[in-house]
Amino acid sequence: MIISCATQDSYPYQNEPIWSETEKAIARTAFDAALGRKLQEVIEKTKQMANAIQRSADLWDLEHYLTQRRKEIDRKYDYGYSQLTQLFGRLLQERRLSEQELRGLREDKMKLIRTFAKFLAEDVA
Amino acid sequence: MIISCATQDSYPYQNEPIWSETEKAIARTAFDAALGRKLQEVIEKTKQMANAIQRSADLWDLEHYLTQRRKEIDRKYDYGYSQLTQLFGRLLQERRLSEQELRGLREDKMKLIRTFAKFLAEDVA
Repeated sequence: MIISCATQDSYPYQNEPIWSETEKAIARTAFDAALGRKLQEVIEKTKQMANAIQRSADLWDLEHYLTQRRKEIDRKYDYGYSQLTQLFGRLLQERRLSEQELRGLREDKMKLIRTFAKFLAEDVA
Repeated sequence: MIISCATQDSYPYQNEPIWSETEKAIARTAFDAALGRKLQEVIEKTKQMANAIQRSADLWDLEHYLTQRRKEIDRKYDYGYSQLTQLFGRLLQERRLSEQELRGLREDKMKLIRTFAKFLAEDVA
């Protein structure tokens, strides 16, 4: 997956920011941390739901919950440089990532990330 | 497939046994008991699997397990008099139901049930 990112970045998206190796490392760490926290949240909720199961409807509620979370995670946590500023913007806006974790990214990315977070905040409001 | 003989082919099921009200009550109790045991088995397994979750792959394994069990239960535990002898035959063969629980059904049904159980046992062997 990541292999294709180099090509995706260069052409035909000339206007996209170029990620330095340092920035890529920072982005990957931040992405992995956010995804790890999300998965941990789902694991904890799953254990809670499972322990509370009493009848068949509870079983299929858990199945539905897991299917929805899998689809959400597949759709949202898609690591590609072309959509990384949007993903980070969304995670910032949802407080699933802190600006602290993005420290070291150049201002061109941070500006895009903050702008998208702001856009989402206004969209939600 | 196995779908027995004349019954399903004929119209309007003249060859099917007629279930008396007493037999319907016995059948319903036996069916509910077998389904209840199956669901309890799935609930226990689900709790075990959930408690053992450590990483994301375990989450999706649990989702897959639940989807498979839901489909299996939907397909198999279908309460209809036209397929009840087959269902009871299968449950007997799988030791999910005892002949004891079917006590009170008339011999015409018991014969069909035992024949189907025997057919499945030979099919498996």
